[in-house]
Amino acid sequence: MINTIAKRPRVDAIVFDAYGTLFDVESVAVTAERLFPQRGVALSQLWRTKQLQYTWLQTLMQSSTQRRDDFASVTAQSLDFAAEELHLSLVGGSRHRLLDAYLDLTPFADAEVALVHLAPLPRLILSNGTREMLEPLAAATGLARHLDAVLSVDAANVYKPHPRAYQLAVDHLKIIPMRVGFVSSNSWDAIGAKAFGFTVFWVNRDGAPLDRHGPRPDHVISSLAELPALVDI
Amino acid sequence: MINTIAKRPRVDAIVFDAYGTLFDVESVAVTAERLFPQRGVALSQLWRTKQLQYTWLQTLMQSSTQRRDDFASVTAQSLDFAAEELHLSLVGGSRHRLLDAYLDLTPFADAEVALVHLAPLPRLILSNGTREMLEPLAAATGLARHLDAVLSVDAANVYKPHPRAYQLAVDHLKIIPMRVGFVSSNSWDAIGAKAFGFTVFWVNRDGAPLDRHGPRPDHVISSLAELPALVDI
Repeated sequence: MINTIAKRPRVDAIVFDAYGTLFDVESVAVTAERLFPQRGVALSQLWRTKQLQYTWLQTLMQSSTQRRDDFASVTAQSLDFAAEELHLSLVGGSRHRLLDAYLDLTPFADAEVALVHLAPLPRLILSNGTREMLEPLAAATGLARHLDAVLSVDAANVYKPHPRAYQLAVDHLKIIPMRVGFVSSNSWDAIGAKAFGFTVFWVNRDGAPLDRHGPRPDHVISSLAELPALVDI
Repeated sequence: MINTIAKRPRVDAIVFDAYGTLFDVESVAVTAERLFPQRGVALSQLWRTKQLQYTWLQTLMQSSTQRRDDFASVTAQSLDFAAEELHLSLVGGSRHRLLDAYLDLTPFADAEVALVHLAPLPRLILSNGTREMLEPLAAATGLARHLDAVLSVDAANVYKPHPRAYQLAVDHLKIIPMRVGFVSSNSWDAIGAKAFGFTVFWVNRDGAPLDRHGPRPDHVISSLAELPALVDI
């Protein structure tokens, strides 16, 4: 991977996306495949696609007086759609097992060591998830020990990449956006954060092409392990 | 299909989505398949998925002072991404041929007759496309004869399903949203229009499941031919 600017960015805090960035959602696909042999991967892919679509669409559709559904609700709505589309029946507790899989994820192997090496910088999560989803996950996986705060976009009543979602981190940290290092494996999230003004690290573990609809992230890395050396701590 | 309310809706105008609703985008897939045998369908599907994603994400990301890219630009951005993702090379004029395919679409067989039978109600297009894309298409296909106006969301600097996009039809027609009959084959567009307050007809030609992230459209039809009988003209 090519570091798109040579100079080490001067950042005063690091903000991480959660799902797919610190926490591996692959275990959701494993649960799906166990419940629906040969179909689980397709189910989990369509589920994830719809889950993101629904967060974007709900944020777009809402008027200022409406309360959008939270990420737990959106996750259930998108699972129901995906199962119907693929003609899979969510009976006998399989719906609960799939939804529970989102609460019991494993951190990526490179997550904890990167968090440790980024100290003493403040390290935060800013996620679409609810606090009820995120806090037990951070605690159970041990990552909470290395985190200074877990922020949910719920406080802004929007989902990423709406600027008000990223603003939550600025309000919490009380530093200018450029001094916030933002880390996400989701290309659309990295681009949204860059448009907002953060210094952005896109974690491109699979060598995917970069989306074309907005500004390029400052850095493209293939592992969180590259992060501490890139940041001027 | 089940008509979800028994009573004929009282609407004073009919507003149509364009791409996929009045105009068949299947010919884009045909062009893609001709250029990339065995891969064209996958290319056109990923292209369409990304095209929609980019409209939503650009609308979400933008600050009030920014100008978003227009639909012609988004269509080109999403094609470039899809081709890179699928390792297809857009050389020798194939990029232009694919982009041109969006300008040379065929109306669905049920479009013109429905428009004719809906007279004397005002009949409009409200589309994500630019006026430069839509007006020649409406003229070349002959549908322009049966349309009172062609509105592009460009005038609101957002894409559907942002409420400001639907508001353009209200501002043009000067009638309350409930009296506007809105017709779209795109489930997310039908749901967005319903959230806005239109009386909505979802054209579900393929028997797809309904998306779960917002209010249900008032009517589900399988062909535009069902429309005139449903509307109290």
